[in-house]
Parts: sequence; C-alpha cells; structure tokens
Amino acid sequence: MFYPDQKEAFAKLLTVVKGRRVAVLGHMRPDGDCIGSQIALTRVLLALGVDAVAVNRHPVPRDIEPIVQDTPFLLWDEFTSEDHIAINVDCADPIRVSQKLVDIFPQSLANIDHHISNPGYADINIIEPVSAATCEVLAGLFFDFDLPVDAVTAQALYVGIATDTGQFRFPSTTQQVFKICSRLMDCGASPNEAARHLFENERFNKLALLQRFLASLRLELEGRVCIGRLPLKAYHDTGAWREEAEGFVDYARDIAEVEIGILLEEYEDGTLKGSLRAKDAKYRVDQVAKFFGGGGHTCAAGFNVDSNIEKFYHEIVAKLEEHLADVAPVEV
Amino acid sequence: MFYPDQKEAFAKLLTVVKGRRVAVLGHMRPDGDCIGSQIALTRVLLALGVDAVAVNRHPVPRDIEPIVQDTPFLLWDEFTSEDHIAINVDCADPIRVSQKLVDIFPQSLANIDHHISNPGYADINIIEPVSAATCEVLAGLFFDFDLPVDAVTAQALYVGIATDTGQFRFPSTTQQVFKICSRLMDCGASPNEAARHLFENERFNKLALLQRFLASLRLELEGRVCIGRLPLKAYHDTGAWREEAEGFVDYARDIAEVEIGILLEEYEDGTLKGSLRAKDAKYRVDQVAKFFGGGGHTCAAGFNVDSNIEKFYHEIVAKLEEHLADVAPVEV
Repeated sequence: MFYPDQKEAFAKLLTVVKGRRVAVLGHMRPDGDCIGSQIALTRVLLALGVDAVAVNRHPVPRDIEPIVQDTPFLLWDEFTSEDHIAINVDCADPIRVSQKLVDIFPQSLANIDHHISNPGYADINIIEPVSAATCEVLAGLFFDFDLPVDAVTAQALYVGIATDTGQFRFPSTTQQVFKICSRLMDCGASPNEAARHLFENERFNKLALLQRFLASLRLELEGRVCIGRLPLKAYHDTGAWREEAEGFVDYARDIAEVEIGILLEEYEDGTLKGSLRAKDAKYRVDQVAKFFGGGGHTCAAGFNVDSNIEKFYHEIVAKLEEHLADVAPVEV
Repeated sequence: MFYPDQKEAFAKLLTVVKGRRVAVLGHMRPDGDCIGSQIALTRVLLALGVDAVAVNRHPVPRDIEPIVQDTPFLLWDEFTSEDHIAINVDCADPIRVSQKLVDIFPQSLANIDHHISNPGYADINIIEPVSAATCEVLAGLFFDFDLPVDAVTAQALYVGIATDTGQFRFPSTTQQVFKICSRLMDCGASPNEAARHLFENERFNKLALLQRFLASLRLELEGRVCIGRLPLKAYHDTGAWREEAEGFVDYARDIAEVEIGILLEEYEDGTLKGSLRAKDAKYRVDQVAKFFGGGGHTCAAGFNVDSNIEKFYHEIVAKLEEHLADVAPVEV
C-alpha cells in the first residue's frame, strides 16, 4: 500500500459521496497538479457512479488544457449547485478556491492535499506533506483501493506529478514517485505526450521576452547574485503575457557561481514584483522577501513593492549584501 | 527479470572477465549515458574483484563530472594496457571509441548498447534497442543478477537514464524506465543531486549566447519553420563554448505553430553547421540534411556545408519550402 495511514479517511470519503452530487474544487490560478488532481478525482468518482464535476475560479492553463479531454470541467459562473458537496484538492487553505466558490461552498466535505501548511479544514482531511504532488497522493489512494484508473485519469495524474516535481528534479522526487509513474504508464499515461504539450507549445512572444530577460542579466556582489529585469516596456514590446515569465528566474539562479537568482518585474499600477530563488535552503530568501513585505520558502520567495526597477535596484542589492554577509558560499 | 534474453550473454561476460584486467571504453565526446555506463560497469566489476578501469578519448563533460567520484577513469594517453581486454559501452560502431583506442584494442570482448544500428561487432553483444539508455540496460542486468550497486553506481546509472531520456520526455521513457529509477533510488540515487549539477551549473557566457540565439530567431514559411543563427561573432562576443549551444535548437522547435526548428552555426574554417529538429517523424528532416550532405534521424538531423549564414540562409529556406509542400501541418 502507498498510503496505509489514509485508508480509513479515504474509505469514509468514498462512502459519504455515494448518491451525492460532488464538486471537485481546485485553487485560483491553477497549475498542473491542481488540474490533474481535479480531473482524476472527478473521473474516478464518475466511474464509481457518483455525479461529479470539476469547478474552478480561473480557467485551465493553455499548456495543461489537452489533459482535460471529456472530463466535466466548469468555471465557477458556469456552475449551478444542486445540493452539491465540495471536495477541495491541492488547496492548503479554504480561501484558495476563491471567495466566489467559498460563497457557494462555505464548508468542504473533504480536503486532499500535500502542502505541509494545510491545517485540515474540512470534515475529512487527507494531507500527505512528504508527497511530491496531490496527484501522487490520489494515484496512491486509487491504487491502494484498486479503483478504475483510465488512460485520461492516468495521464492527468502523471502531468500533475511531472509538473510539481519540476520534471523529476526537485528533492520531492522520491522512490515512490517513480514507482507510481511506472504504474500510471501501465494505465496508459504517456510522458512523451505530456512533454509535447507542456514544452513544445510556446508562443514566439515568450521567447522574445526571454531574450529581453537574458539581455538584462547582471551579476552583483562578486557574482553571488544574478538579477534579471523586466520593465513594463519589455512586456509592451514583445506582447508576452505575465505568466510567460514564470521560470525565467531559474536561468539567473542556475549560473554556476550564483547563489541567489532574482527577477524584478514592473507592473502597470506602479508596483514591482520581486522573485528570489536560492540554490540552498541556508540562504533563507524568505527573510529577504519578508523585509520587503513578502514571504515564501527558504529557497523560493517573493514580494511586491510600490516602486520601479530604476529606484529599487540599488535597494535590493544593498539588502542582499547585508543578508549574504553572514552566509558562506555553497559548495557545488 | 528486466532482460531475460540477455541472461546467457551477460553470464558469459561475467565469467570471461574473471582474473582479467578490463578497460571499459566509451565513445568520443562522451555524454551522460556513456559516462554513466562506464562508471557503473567499472565499479561493479571492481566490486566483483575484477581489475577494471574506464578509458576515453575525450574528457568527461563538466556537468557530468560530479558523478565520477572515486571511479578509476583515465584519458587514452594516461592509460597503459597491461594485457587488458576491452568492453565497449554505448558505442554503436567500434570506431566510436576513437582511432587511438582502436589502435590499442583492435577487437573488443564485449559491446553493451541500446542503439538500433549496432551490428554486434564484439565477441559478446548485448544490444537492447528498445531501452532508453545503455544505463537502463546495465541497471536491469545488475538487478537481474543481484550484483552490488553502490550509491555512486546508482547515481551514475540514474544520470545516464535522465540525460538520455531528455529528463523523462522522450518516447523512449517507458514503464520500465520509471521502475528502474525507483530501484536506483533504493540504492542511493538522488534525482535532485543530479539536477543540481546538470542544470544549476551554467556559465554566464552560455546565457549570453542563448540571448544572441533568441534575438536571431526568425519565423519562415508562414511560421512552419523557425531559424536561429549563431554567426562567428556571437561566439567571439560572448566567450561561449561551441558545446554550450547544444539544445538551443529546441527553443525554435518548441514554438506552438512551428513544425521544424533550425540552428545555423558558423565555424572558424568557413564552414557552417545546420541542425534540424522536427515535432514529428513525418517531417523526415533526415532527407533535408541528406540533401546538404548530412544525415540523422527523422526528427533530428544535421549537416555541414562550406558556406556562411548570409549566403546559405536563402538556400535552406528554399529547400524547406519545397520539402514542406508535401507535408501537412501536424495537429498539436
């Protein structure tokens, strides 16, 4: 069994949903793990004869869309609750489903997640913080309970795991992750098919924005920090979307001698977003983010300030100089 | 068992090497799968009490170097044969080990590989063309024979599989690949550690070259083709190495509407190298490469011509126009 400790809770969930209508809710600005979890749970419930539908505040991202197939998947304003009960997936906090959906579902029946910060806010809580993805938890439970996993379900679960592990790069990539992926392929998942829509579907505009970002890279503090800048003009000139800059900061961090990579982005409302990525938890970039009113994890954090790149650049370099004075460079 | 059909051949290999000195040879300009295979086989032979050493014509690439650890690994001119016998890994053709090493070892005892074109040129031939990597074949055989796989061996095998599957993206990523990776993690392999040296170790110069490449991208033939150009000046200005442009062509191919991505690189000797990558085998880019005196696979091919980008650009666009006239755009 993958999740013996969750046997009781998941059995209870399967009993409670019998004869009910179920809405499977994901979080705002959903990612691959969120969408994959919603598709998979909705389909398995349907296969068990439960009337289920996935419902979200925001649309399925373009690169994830191909995995939805014939799964019933609605936006909040297309959905009418007919005495539905809600199951939240991949939502560390109930408000993550959006205020709109909390208004419809003030209390969720169940909460299936892998975020350590999840307090267990539903009637039934299945939280596995060591797991790489909510899709890993669901796949494990489906296999443990011998539930019907069709090819679309398998592919959705695979995509959730592949995206939430950074394509099997993050420390969360465990022995169990590979074991479950192998089982999902038995059920029809295709890593190559997933790679095609996840990675071979870029807009030219995004590459133009990446070019601007790379041209802006500057090494600071004797190469310990690398900062990339995307002023408003970069977005205007290239026609790229905000979401297309996601992951750019990794290029800055991935330089050999660099310890912290940073992306500064200007917004139309006169604010500036900072993203920080460190090579090691010891850099505590969450502390730097907190200083500027933001937060996050030890290796990945962010903040928003009322400023622009020209004004703010020297501030963040000064703060980092102070912050890094106490941290010895990491061995590569 | 992973490879029941190879049981006899591998058993024979293990018998023949007893009491002999063994040189484990890889191919010129070695990649992750080659180095990983050499490390793994050398270590397992050593653990079995066989005097083994890995020997190559060219050095271990910088991003792969961390997996070598304490494995005996020599360049051809550091190696003195004392009645050694040779085992080739990941070499589809004997000459791939280099003329220098063929001069030392005119005939290899064994040949372990996953390339379909391998004719079986050694006394013992273990060729598994369906496998994603030679490291997958070796890992499967080690597990089948219950041989001692230490953490360094496991990591080397993992890196070979991860690199040769494009980090689990290529069609060669099978159910068995994940099963073997899971077993390798049991033995101490760390995907995150691998990711750190494979992906977080870039030179600033490489990013500068990537920026030049992205700035040069041009859509041709109504967006069916995207061409990037690296003139000599791009290398001179950025100080990037030739090998650092590897993978750039994928950025061109990965654009949503693009069917074929192309990279044109100028060389100091007045030649030009073309790399072609297609989204689907039906594009037969090997035929385009062949027209210009090169070759390769249906999805990935290349050629060298005596020309420069300015002169050659229109030639390749014209050839592609003719070639693509017969191929319908692929559905994404």
